[in-house]
Amino acid sequence: MNAEEAIAEAARTYSNWGRWGPDDVRGTLNFLDEAKRVEGARLVRRGVSFSLSQRFDMDGPQRGWRRRTNPVHTMLDTGVDAALGNQGFPHGIGGADDVIAMPLQCSTQWDGLGHIFDHGMAWNGRRAQDVVTSEGDLVTGIETIAGVVAGRGVLLDVAAVLGGDSGGELPDGFAVTEEHLLATAEAHGVRVGRGDIVCVRTGRLARARREGWGEYAGGPSPGLSFWTAGWLHRTEIAAIATDTWGFEVRPNEFENAFQPLHQVVIPNMGLLVGEMWDLEALAADCAADGVHEFQLVAAPLPITGAVGSPVNPVALK
Amino acid sequence: MNAEEAIAEAARTYSNWGRWGPDDVRGTLNFLDEAKRVEGARLVRRGVSFSLSQRFDMDGPQRGWRRRTNPVHTMLDTGVDAALGNQGFPHGIGGADDVIAMPLQCSTQWDGLGHIFDHGMAWNGRRAQDVVTSEGDLVTGIETIAGVVAGRGVLLDVAAVLGGDSGGELPDGFAVTEEHLLATAEAHGVRVGRGDIVCVRTGRLARARREGWGEYAGGPSPGLSFWTAGWLHRTEIAAIATDTWGFEVRPNEFENAFQPLHQVVIPNMGLLVGEMWDLEALAADCAADGVHEFQLVAAPLPITGAVGSPVNPVALK
Amino acid sequence: MNAEEAIAEAARTYSNWGRWGPDDVRGTLNFLDEAKRVEGARLVRRGVSFSLSQRFDMDGPQRGWRRRTNPVHTMLDTGVDAALGNQGFPHGIGGADDVIAMPLQCSTQWDGLGHIFDHGMAWNGRRAQDVVTSEGDLVTGIETIAGVVAGRGVLLDVAAVLGGDSGGELPDGFAVTEEHLLATAEAHGVRVGRGDIVCVRTGRLARARREGWGEYAGGPSPGLSFWTAGWLHRTEIAAIATDTWGFEVRPNEFENAFQPLHQVVIPNMGLLVGEMWDLEALAADCAADGVHEFQLVAAPLPITGAVGSPVNPVALK
Amino acid sequence: MNAEEAIAEAARTYSNWGRWGPDDVRGTLNFLDEAKRVEGARLVRRGVSFSLSQRFDMDGPQRGWRRRTNPVHTMLDTGVDAALGNQGFPHGIGGADDVIAMPLQCSTQWDGLGHIFDHGMAWNGRRAQDVVTSEGDLVTGIETIAGVVAGRGVLLDVAAVLGGDSGGELPDGFAVTEEHLLATAEAHGVRVGRGDIVCVRTGRLARARREGWGEYAGGPSPGLSFWTAGWLHRTEIAAIATDTWGFEVRPNEFENAFQPLHQVVIPNMGLLVGEMWDLEALAADCAADGVHEFQLVAAPLPITGAVGSPVNPVALK
Repeated sequence: MNAEEAIAEAARTYSNWGRWGPDDVRGTLNFLDEAKRVEGARLVRRGVSFSLSQRFDMDGPQRGWRRRTNPVHTMLDTGVDAALGNQGFPHGIGGADDVIAMPLQCSTQWDGLGHIFDHGMAWNGRRAQDVVTSEGDLVTGIETIAGVVAGRGVLLDVAAVLGGDSGGELPDGFAVTEEHLLATAEAHGVRVGRGDIVCVRTGRLARARREGWGEYAGGPSPGLSFWTAGWLHRTEIAAIATDTWGFEVRPNEFENAFQPLHQVVIPNMGLLVGEMWDLEALAADCAADGVHEFQLVAAPLPITGAVGSPVNPVALK
Repeated sequence: MNAEEAIAEAARTYSNWGRWGPDDVRGTLNFLDEAKRVEGARLVRRGVSFSLSQRFDMDGPQRGWRRRTNPVHTMLDTGVDAALGNQGFPHGIGGADDVIAMPLQCSTQWDGLGHIFDHGMAWNGRRAQDVVTSEGDLVTGIETIAGVVAGRGVLLDVAAVLGGDSGGELPDGFAVTEEHLLATAEAHGVRVGRGDIVCVRTGRLARARREGWGEYAGGPSPGLSFWTAGWLHRTEIAAIATDTWGFEVRPNEFENAFQPLHQVVIPNMGLLVGEMWDLEALAADCAADGVHEFQLVAAPLPITGAVGSPVNPVALK
Repeated sequence: MNAEEAIAEAARTYSNWGRWGPDDVRGTLNFLDEAKRVEGARLVRRGVSFSLSQRFDMDGPQRGWRRRTNPVHTMLDTGVDAALGNQGFPHGIGGADDVIAMPLQCSTQWDGLGHIFDHGMAWNGRRAQDVVTSEGDLVTGIETIAGVVAGRGVLLDVAAVLGGDSGGELPDGFAVTEEHLLATAEAHGVRVGRGDIVCVRTGRLARARREGWGEYAGGPSPGLSFWTAGWLHRTEIAAIATDTWGFEVRPNEFENAFQPLHQVVIPNMGLLVGEMWDLEALAADCAADGVHEFQLVAAPLPITGAVGSPVNPVALK
Repeated sequence: MNAEEAIAEAARTYSNWGRWGPDDVRGTLNFLDEAKRVEGARLVRRGVSFSLSQRFDMDGPQRGWRRRTNPVHTMLDTGVDAALGNQGFPHGIGGADDVIAMPLQCSTQWDGLGHIFDHGMAWNGRRAQDVVTSEGDLVTGIETIAGVVAGRGVLLDVAAVLGGDSGGELPDGFAVTEEHLLATAEAHGVRVGRGDIVCVRTGRLARARREGWGEYAGGPSPGLSFWTAGWLHRTEIAAIATDTWGFEVRPNEFENAFQPLHQVVIPNMGLLVGEMWDLEALAADCAADGVHEFQLVAAPLPITGAVGSPVNPVALK
């Protein structure tokens, strides 16, 4: 089966168009309900917390691919100015302000539902040109999910379970299959269910930290196999996130293909996808205490009309 | 007592310098411990969640004061391009990417500990020029608290309790005193304790939404009285946030003064301050169910060296 | 005649499509030839020079219309840092660097030929979607005219000649007609010819400087009448520039119309249009010495794919 | 002699502090007078023109050194949107707008007089901290020279004259001495005099175009010898520009030194320095017709308070 046919069949089979009505803007986040939020909160037993975000700065992985740059952070006022007393404020107060410019896809992020299209169609069967114009995403902008991404998180540390001699790092081109996911969950003694946010660790970020960024942002990578689409659909998870730039395996499993799993799961399934998450500290803790479930709060910055957002996901155990 | 003297006395009396050792970068967030995080999580009973963030877009309140602008969000690729098929991708996949440029103080935010100085000194007794240079905050950058701001939140809806005929909106220049805070807590039947994150609603944002932004960002406002410094210190709260641009009352309570409470609480007390939070929906819910405590997760975007960060705080009940 | 019909007729009558071959990207700049450049240079007699650019800073006229903001200029390093010696350089050298973010249409500018379309068509009969995508202007980007905009400039100070009691400032809504242009040229004793760059002063900028920006950028304004299209075509000028935001009169001369003259002259005639030029000092000098012609060098910043560019035009007499 | 001593001696010997009064903000541009502007204009004989600017885009040479990035150009509106008719304009008009974010030192540029300091002192004996704060250059901002940089240009194609077998490209580390400059001028049959703008071609840009950018922006390079400071002072030129990132030779001629010639000529001599100019087409033309002098108009973008500016210099012959 070629890419076109496989994508078309998966798109048709795993489509959630219309499942939550014609006006839906949340996709699989609809699975994350109030009961799930209570369930997530109950997983906080020790009171420890982990940021799952990489740092946002100019030392990040971007090299210009798709015009993505690293964040540029500049100061409007500094402590140096304050120390010299040239800021014009009374009674010894001094201040510092700052500014940032960055692509919303440059580091730890959520892909919004307007980030990917399938043959000109966006989530829920809308025409791409009616959804995302030069003014931004007029329908499914990331601000529409500002308050809802809080629930039960599950870590599937595939690299630790299957990485073998690699020291917990899967190689580029390693396609994580449904079998791998199931084996990992079983090894962890954790279940994955409806409304969960699943975090898959491949070890790709750990490797980049050892070896340098290289092509971390846009190049070869371990990641989910195209053929996990069925599992992603059947489990009714709310969201998935990985420690790689593009969540699915690269090179892709078809010739001359580009991110076919994105094409199935974002516009057709309505799945929220997280990328470039830093799962290292959380994974170490889960390995230590044997508990791979936690409360996860990962609220995007509600930038009106954005097709994605930087995010600082917090895991609480 | 004039401003200089009052600030100096309060700074001395309520200083936490050295309290958590010479290397501390967290200030009062040290009060937010693991037990508090567990306590916060246990407040999630119904599974409802609220984003306490304003939207980030060009229709925001900034007018150029201190060179603060509203966010500028632009697209690198759109659904319109995807629909016309000129993106160069195979098998019908299309994509949209975007970019943002914004001051970190433009909307819902945390002030980092490097945001304000007192006579050239920063948090914990460091020299301002050694902390915040043109390269950013080298010591107390907002990334240092990436994972810790999750715990118990308390809403003090001062406007609802004391606003009288104003319909839940305090007027500009209204100084919220310790007595007001205590009366509000009593009316709500909620206690404020060590390690809590206190959210004070003045109704200023509600007014701006009715009347237009006007001088919402930088002008007259209700807010905390300078004389609440003792209460802020004594209660050992971890953080405080309001629905106003500058958290304290404007005009300030001294002649020719500028944000004297900032000068006391940020560099001297080490208090985390949140500004421009949107407490409207949460306040309505608290009024309805009579419960003014909740889990609050308010993780800043970990921008290396930033003296503040946009944030999407999430309250869970 | 309604706007649609008038525009269609003018577009047809004054079209230059194909005049310089199917691959042309310069439009009427083709009229600016080497002889004209020599002629321009010979006008430099006294050696005086004038910048015709407004300043680029946050105190500019933009208020967010069409998401246009004023430039944001921030420092990467400062003299304050250098003075404190914390920059890490040897032997006492210190440095300052800076950054800018701005819309290319925010202040003194050239409109590129990809800035305006007529019924989906761009200059020389190309389809708009084939010319300007989210990647920028792939055909007529402003970089294509990086070296050519130098020649003979002519100032037509319509405000001085026709402004009457207004003190050299035309009122908003004043449509400058062909008759006004001819009368002004005659009063100045200057001729306008093929390949010239014509600068029309309306006094709108002078008024904004007296009264405050108000709606200078996007609001009512004096400017060229729609019916000058024939004169603009017949004279075979290379370019035209005004001291207003939009070069043509606002409100436009048709009901519910928006910049109909742009629609005729940019995509159909291929005319280079300059906006928000500062003609004040030059006009004063021309009035003083009675010479309204000069060398004009107005090289856009060659930003690849830009549909316009900030410019600092220099007039030499 | 070590770097400290050599710099101190050169700074003292070649200082122009006070030469044009205590309020001066133009430095050696004072040598570029009206007579020189007329002389420059008279050099326009054939009417040919050359842009000496590199293109401003993401494919530029910057790699993050000193937080310098390449320009990021994004669209606010496109022809694709216009073609689909979703812009909301009447009568078939469509438009495209765009935005840029860039360091002012990223490509072809002028260094302003506030760009470099010597032991905390700026041009004309001012304290660096009084000149360039986080608000920008309050005294010698690039806008102060908006209208004056137009005069006689001279090309010294050192690479063509001395490059030998290298094909007109000097190697990295090649220090261009006074003798080299004099020999080149003699070979060209051109004189350099007071008020001229001298363009020195090393072939470094040509090499980068052949080999890829590599370390073009910040790395090893041919360039002016530290010991040309006397010649730069004695000739009383108005400005100098090269086709390299930093105008002087790298590595520098002292151990552990960093741009010592900058330290002498910018804050002490008050010399305007241009960097990353594209002299290729002009050099070819000069080689062909044997004329190495021309009119040069190189007006910086008048960004208020900027310590430098992108520029599109135009040479006219």
